[in-house]
Amino acid sequence: MAESEPYVVHPIGVVRSSLRTPADAPNQAFECAPQARLELDAAVADGLHRIEPGDELVVLTWLHLADRGVLLTHPTGNPDIPLTGVFRTRSPDRPNPIGVHRVTVTAVEGLHLHVGALEAIDGTPIIDLKVAMRESREA
Amino acid sequence: MAESEPYVVHPIGVVRSSLRTPADAPNQAFECAPQARLELDAAVADGLHRIEPGDELVVLTWLHLADRGVLLTHPTGNPDIPLTGVFRTRSPDRPNPIGVHRVTVTAVEGLHLHVGALEAIDGTPIIDLKVAMRESREA
Repeated sequence: MAESEPYVVHPIGVVRSSLRTPADAPNQAFECAPQARLELDAAVADGLHRIEPGDELVVLTWLHLADRGVLLTHPTGNPDIPLTGVFRTRSPDRPNPIGVHRVTVTAVEGLHLHVGALEAIDGTPIIDLKVAMRESREA
Repeated sequence: MAESEPYVVHPIGVVRSSLRTPADAPNQAFECAPQARLELDAAVADGLHRIEPGDELVVLTWLHLADRGVLLTHPTGNPDIPLTGVFRTRSPDRPNPIGVHRVTVTAVEGLHLHVGALEAIDGTPIIDLKVAMRESREA
């Protein structure tokens, strides 16, 4: 069913992490991000069917602390890198602040998925999960 | 600046493609998807600064024809595969129907980015672009 824009995103869960503020968070998971827990809402429980430890998932988050008015930034906050359009960066500040994170499921407990390294801070809304593709060309 | 949920997504552009209907579209770009053109809105022009041919981008789309009420599906539409939660699939039908696509920029003409294989159909709203990460672990 087609809808009219603008489109409305309803969170499906929340990230639980020892990362409490953006200043705590590494720019990317491979920079020593901690393990985390994805707490999904009961309303979407069926959507988790067949997820199991070892699965690689793409987690989409709503970066709720982002500044949606930013279009130019110094990548990684380094002023020595020239101003760059946000669409050529991974900055959280952008018109639609959606985070894309690849994680490995380490345990499943009902509506809670325990996952490996994730750079999102505690309380970040989860808006989608997808299976990761096996090939390295994956987005 | 934090916002209250639900969150509102404003499209930043649109996909132009020879794929006209979902029936035309392959499930994934590597299944022979055609080249496409990303037409961005003038309001976000600054966000494209420094994007150039050869860049690898992650394109987020709003899958505007999706059924947001689906939580269980047969992956790839194959009834021989057991019913699976949509969060363990790449099905467009899901509560927040956001597509994640990796593309290579082949040419830049003002607000138009020409890109390689993309499985989204003509008219699909674009909601974000990000630089792809160089490592294969990328989401």
